[in-house]
Amino acid sequence: MDSRVAPQPTPGGYRILADSALRDYLGRLPAIAARLGGLPEAWSVTEVGDGNLNLVFIVKGPSGGIAVKQALPYVRLVGESWPLPLSRAHYEHLALTHQARLAPGLVPAVLHHDETLALTAMELLEPHIIMRKGLVAGTCYPRFVEDITTFMARTLFLSSDLAVPAAQKKEGIAAFAGNHALCKITEDLIFTDPYRKAEQNRWTQPYLDATAARFREDLDLHVAISRLKLKFMSSPEALIHGDLHTGSIMVTENETKVIDPEFAFYGPMGFDVGAIIANLLMAYFASDGHERELSERQAFETWVLHAIETVWTEFAGKFLALWRSEAKGDAYPAILFEGAAGAARLERERQGYLNRLFQDTVGFAAAKTIRRILGLAHNIDFELIEDLKRRAVCEARSLHLARTMMLDTPSFPTIDKVTKAARALRGWQPDFSR
Amino acid sequence: MDSRVAPQPTPGGYRILADSALRDYLGRLPAIAARLGGLPEAWSVTEVGDGNLNLVFIVKGPSGGIAVKQALPYVRLVGESWPLPLSRAHYEHLALTHQARLAPGLVPAVLHHDETLALTAMELLEPHIIMRKGLVAGTCYPRFVEDITTFMARTLFLSSDLAVPAAQKKEGIAAFAGNHALCKITEDLIFTDPYRKAEQNRWTQPYLDATAARFREDLDLHVAISRLKLKFMSSPEALIHGDLHTGSIMVTENETKVIDPEFAFYGPMGFDVGAIIANLLMAYFASDGHERELSERQAFETWVLHAIETVWTEFAGKFLALWRSEAKGDAYPAILFEGAAGAARLERERQGYLNRLFQDTVGFAAAKTIRRILGLAHNIDFELIEDLKRRAVCEARSLHLARTMMLDTPSFPTIDKVTKAARALRGWQPDFSR
Repeated sequence: MDSRVAPQPTPGGYRILADSALRDYLGRLPAIAARLGGLPEAWSVTEVGDGNLNLVFIVKGPSGGIAVKQALPYVRLVGESWPLPLSRAHYEHLALTHQARLAPGLVPAVLHHDETLALTAMELLEPHIIMRKGLVAGTCYPRFVEDITTFMARTLFLSSDLAVPAAQKKEGIAAFAGNHALCKITEDLIFTDPYRKAEQNRWTQPYLDATAARFREDLDLHVAISRLKLKFMSSPEALIHGDLHTGSIMVTENETKVIDPEFAFYGPMGFDVGAIIANLLMAYFASDGHERELSERQAFETWVLHAIETVWTEFAGKFLALWRSEAKGDAYPAILFEGAAGAARLERERQGYLNRLFQDTVGFAAAKTIRRILGLAHNIDFELIEDLKRRAVCEARSLHLARTMMLDTPSFPTIDKVTKAARALRGWQPDFSR
Repeated sequence: MDSRVAPQPTPGGYRILADSALRDYLGRLPAIAARLGGLPEAWSVTEVGDGNLNLVFIVKGPSGGIAVKQALPYVRLVGESWPLPLSRAHYEHLALTHQARLAPGLVPAVLHHDETLALTAMELLEPHIIMRKGLVAGTCYPRFVEDITTFMARTLFLSSDLAVPAAQKKEGIAAFAGNHALCKITEDLIFTDPYRKAEQNRWTQPYLDATAARFREDLDLHVAISRLKLKFMSSPEALIHGDLHTGSIMVTENETKVIDPEFAFYGPMGFDVGAIIANLLMAYFASDGHERELSERQAFETWVLHAIETVWTEFAGKFLALWRSEAKGDAYPAILFEGAAGAARLERERQGYLNRLFQDTVGFAAAKTIRRILGLAHNIDFELIEDLKRRAVCEARSLHLARTMMLDTPSFPTIDKVTKAARALRGWQPDFSR
């Protein structure tokens, strides 16, 4: 990363809570102590953070458990050489509060928040697992599409100019403007570094060497990613999650919870929707690499492709329904669309709006894919394929589709064009010699 | 206006400064007193505000003069029934400071600012006149295009993501987010009311009755204006002036000063550029109505059309030059466009960016025109044409072009298409019977 923020002095009172200090701290919070039950000495404390940025503890007592997330003043994945402001815990808490209000039941309940310690205690999600792990194992999630489309339609629509008066929207933008260090990570790691020689980039060598070099030299692609970057930076359409991949979702077969909104800010809606579609596409392309017997995962792959299609169609349907019933914002004022003819014309424009949003979604999905294969942060979808050549084949298929989606976005006017192209690439054998 | 802000309690210490109170107040400011010279009792104080919102005084003493602008807690044009926050004086001062830094010499120098009184003292611009008055009189301004294009290119480019790191840009957006009451005026009066039955709308009756009715019923136009409104609300591309018409510009033949940036916020660049082009187009169409002898104002009209063309071409040229030399922002990172091929590709993209900005400009210019003929606030360009039918003819020509520009924006890919269409409409005789 070229332009790290300068090391931030940690505010007075901040300290990293190790095992016993965390136990003491939580023991002094009556509601938490009651939820856990018994004596603090008897609580089990396990650090489980497998994300890139923070400490995450699971604390269990005789009566129940909680999850505790504490921000570190640096990027955990890299270390103290890459400082990152603790204020991200403030924005994560603010976003969680918004999301809980807009999409009840789809985010973990907050039990306690401490600004000074950059610490949030939440309900323990059990027996939920990180969705990405389930996808690697080939598990289908029958609730997922219904839940994630509700989450996205409600959080995005209900924080947009379609639902919220302009003054309130501007206040929201200002409230999240300080989260720029997290936005900067996205701007660098997703929208810049995979397309240049960056020390932190990784890819499956030697197979993808030539592909990575082509991405670094493809000027049309550089223009396309730069347009997407500008859109990311200057389109405060809605309060977006900002990191909505399958590692930010915890699932059972009956429940879906969206976690980790520390990248939240007012940005383009297509960035969230594109993240979901990209991560499902990667799960689809990685599936071949996890197959032990031919066609073993066919049902899973059929489900994933169907999920991709319905993520868009159900999201669009719910977004449109909200627009018809909850349009309390200043955009598209009802008074300009009165009567039957007005209603019909507005309905046509709503469809046009969704079509434009779909184009953004396709572009951002492509960007989210490319960064996971050529950039710093990779996915276990691909990383757990041990045979490197086999992994590279899956990644090359994914990259091939992403490149087309980014360069020729209008050739994907509808989601079935995306899944059709994915299906067509399922058996494609890349030539790694060029 | 449908949704006025609730009456704001005026903050402690605010009072409207009448003649002697203003004299006393200024007399206690050493720098101001020295600039005016002599004793406060001898200063002349003249209220000259002809704008819609504020009090403006010219104060003169034996050594010199100043202009004093004080915000009222309501809209001056309407009265106390339409409250408006005093904080607009804060944002105006903030914008003036930014503009003075980015475009030195093109805004009045601030001599004193008082947040509590919502009052700003500025250099007296003398013998400058409001440009619109000069245009009505048929005066050409040889410095204008050079100055206004410098002002726009520098204030817009240098506050954009092309010039400013994303974190700093987000701070700027947040700093102006509180100016939403002024944005709301624009949202209502420009982007909504002219297209609906609004009590405050006015037009030249009876001649434009049918036209006004058509604008209220044209659903394609309602979609187009709603898209522009959404762009206005959610495209913080740069710190825009927000009210850049020819009544916000003071001129001599050798100097140009941009005043009154109280509508400033981070918005779409095309809104400022479109405002200039719209107001020059209206000056052009109004010119026929001010003619006492045939072709008397031909030289003026030729100048205005040439000014319209060069406002765009010189703005674009200066914007591109800044992009080549001052691209210190996070958008379009240089590292993705290295070498001769990269430079050539980026240069092509810059042209594409300007082409897209021109499309925004055409749309916003249309919106700024329509509101001046069918909405609340009108222009003396047209209002001073005493013969109502003659006035309506000029207005109808202007409306005709604006409607085409809004509905068929892509048919104006370049500025000469706009001036060509204007020229073609110069002799058009509208049929007011339909």
